[in-house]
This record gives sequence, C-alpha cells and structure tokens, in this order.
Amino acid sequence: MLKYEEIAQKIEQTIVDKKLEQGKKLPVLEHLMTEFQASKSTVMKAVSLLEKKGLIYQVRGSGIFVRKQKREGYIRFTNQGFSGELRRFNITAKVLELDIRKPTEEVAENLNIDLTDDVYYVKRVRYISGQTLCLEESYYNKSIVTYLNHEIVQGSIFDYISEGLGQKIGFSDMYMHINKLKREEAELLELNEGDPKLFVETIFYLNNAQPFDYSKVTYNFEQSQFFFQSTGYSL
Amino acid sequence: MLKYEEIAQKIEQTIVDKKLEQGKKLPVLEHLMTEFQASKSTVMKAVSLLEKKGLIYQVRGSGIFVRKQKREGYIRFTNQGFSGELRRFNITAKVLELDIRKPTEEVAENLNIDLTDDVYYVKRVRYISGQTLCLEESYYNKSIVTYLNHEIVQGSIFDYISEGLGQKIGFSDMYMHINKLKREEAELLELNEGDPKLFVETIFYLNNAQPFDYSKVTYNFEQSQFFFQSTGYSL
Repeated sequence: MLKYEEIAQKIEQTIVDKKLEQGKKLPVLEHLMTEFQASKSTVMKAVSLLEKKGLIYQVRGSGIFVRKQKREGYIRFTNQGFSGELRRFNITAKVLELDIRKPTEEVAENLNIDLTDDVYYVKRVRYISGQTLCLEESYYNKSIVTYLNHEIVQGSIFDYISEGLGQKIGFSDMYMHINKLKREEAELLELNEGDPKLFVETIFYLNNAQPFDYSKVTYNFEQSQFFFQSTGYSL
Repeated sequence: MLKYEEIAQKIEQTIVDKKLEQGKKLPVLEHLMTEFQASKSTVMKAVSLLEKKGLIYQVRGSGIFVRKQKREGYIRFTNQGFSGELRRFNITAKVLELDIRKPTEEVAENLNIDLTDDVYYVKRVRYISGQTLCLEESYYNKSIVTYLNHEIVQGSIFDYISEGLGQKIGFSDMYMHINKLKREEAELLELNEGDPKLFVETIFYLNNAQPFDYSKVTYNFEQSQFFFQSTGYSL
C-alpha cells in the first residue's frame, strides 16, 4: 500500500470510529501533513482518494468536510464486488456450475479475448443471512484468473483474485435493467415467475485496464437496496 | 469555467469527435501542456476530472488512455438529472402538481431544513419520445430554488437551477430499490399494477454541500436501461 493510500485509510478509520457526521470539518492540510509526516502532495492525493470514494467533500476556500454516510441496510455499488460491504452479514454461495469453456461472441467481446481462448464459467446463487440475494453467472478470462475450484467459488472470488492471485482490481462498467423474472430464475431465487428483477451486467477491469470478469447478476428484488454516491464533476 | 475545466472539455470533445476507442492512448502530459498552454498542475487537474467522469484511465508509468464508451440507449446515472444525457431524445413532462408547502419530517431531514421552512413540491410524469419514462416527486428548498412556475417545470428544472438561478450543482446521494408498481403509479406510467418498478430517491447538493432537492422517482421498467462507471479507488 502506498503512503497516500495508508493516510486515506487512517482518515477513513477516524471518520468511522468517531462516527463523524455530515458537515463535520476535518483538520486543515497543514495539520494532516504534520500528523502523517507527509508532503502536501501526498496528503492531497489521500484527500482526493477519499473524495472519489464519497467520504468527504471539499469546499474551495473553506476546507474538507465529512459526507453523509449511507442509510443502514443499503448495498454500496462499487467495483469490488459486495462482499467487503456485506462482510458483517453472512454471505454464502451455492455453486450450480463451474467449468472451463470457450466464450460466446458476447463474452469474447466483453472480455476482449478470442473465441479460441478459455474462460472459467461460474454460476451460483448467493445468499444473505440465508435468503437468496442474487443469481450470478460470471466469465473469467482464464489467462488472468488462472485457477478456480469449488471451494474458492463458494467464497468471495474477488478476495481470491486480489489476495490469492495478487491481481489489482481497477474499474468497472455496469449496465442495469429492470425486468420480470423468468421461471428458472424465479425458482433459483425462491420467488415467483414475473416478479421484478434487477439485472446487472458488469465488466470488471484490472488496474492496467484488462477486462478479467464479465458477469450477469439477477438480484432478488426484496433484497435489493442499493446506494450510489456521485461526486459532482460535470463539465 | 475554470481553465482546467475548459481543457477537460476540449479533450472530451476530441474523444467524442474522433470516436476514440477503448485503449487509445492520449498525448503525454508535456504535449497537452504545450497544446493548451497550461501548467502541469492545471493539465493534471483536467486529466483527473476526466478520470472521475469515467472518460479516461491512467496506468502508472504508461500514460493516459480512453475508456470504453457506453452502449447506445443506456442512461448514465449522474448528479445532473438526465436531460443532458438524453437531450437528443425528445423529453417532455406533464405537470401534475406544483405548489409551495411545508416539508414532512422526512423531507425536512433530507433537505436539512426546519418544518416551518418552505419547499416547492413538483409532481410530474416525464416522457421519452412520447412514452412514459418516470413519475417524479421533488421537493426543492425554497430558500435556494427561490422561484418555479408551470412553464419552468415542464422543462429541465436542473438547467433552470444552474443557468437561470446561477446555482452550482455539486454531488448527490442516491438510494435505489426494486419493487412492484402500485395502482396509481401504474396508471400514471401506463403500465399494469404489480409490474416491476425502479424507485430512486436522491438528495442533490450544491457544490457548497447544501442539499437543495430531495426527489423520489419511479421509473418505467421498460425504459430503464442505466449505465454506471466506477473508477477504482478502493482502499
């Protein structure tokens, strides 16, 4: 972890530990520079990181302030899967399929690979505190995610990719629809055919911009409470 | 508009005009500094702005690259309403209610005002190319959004707030649920009771962090194709 990431993590921890509320002013840059024994540019990078994460906002000429924290029970949409967010809940998975296969054209295009390349295909139902959370089909570029087995895919695949395989996860593109559940989806999610569904397709990239995971997730509408923050950088 | 915003806008225009594809490398910083006659820190601020907007990504030691553009027909979730995104479509509104009232406790809390303060309440159905897009109820802090009338709320209220009232829109917090349409909602959206709905509550802030709009929007599921980009700044 780089110095500025470490500083950002410490400031975040302070906000969480002290339960700092919306509008609470953080110490000025000079103070943070002394506290963390870091240069102005390093502290500014840490502050900028926290701003991108939606934890703080800066008002020109006024200072750095804490942003509102999200309501309880909402899942934050991020590029890191949701296990981190939901770690305090009991997230489990039932693996329906796990195999190595050739990609369809759609998968090949989204992963930027050839039709002759290999992908890991994982289909699973994920549960939160014993209730169905979502049905997930994921395609992993096997040249990046070189190994998966049943034990791994019962847990957090993203934790494994970053901690086990040492890959650095970058950004993601997410496409979202609302629709009605088909029969098979409804059965797997323990809902009724025709019930609402949130369908999310995501392409996840490493921090070198290589796509490594193309996933299609159908959420149980009864569990789908999501939270987004926008940082206001329109032109 | 500040210098770095201008530079960012010009770079964005180039990406759009030249239809630059994912992975296309942009000129190095030194080149951009010469091209725009700007300091390194100004160009870096412009690049950082484009990164936050999801238009480019930086790979340390390699350079600045164009990010994938979204698929056609998807609405980008931003903090700016969606008129800008959808300007090329024909967006219209039917105003159902417009009045000045006292906030409920929920509204007062979200707008950070007192129960004795005034809010503008606007209820309208918005249409895209003649089809219902969403049902919207919005509460505007009247001390910020000082004036609204029927003509204004038939168009883009956000355009009016930024251009007419000269307010600078900042960031937003967005809470999202999936559920089933109630009878009144279904009638207004020309759908059936029990059909899926996407329900989005948003608190919009000025760039000085004052909340000015609390809105509840119910989207027509047939029209709801949304796109998000995450920039990968996890800790």
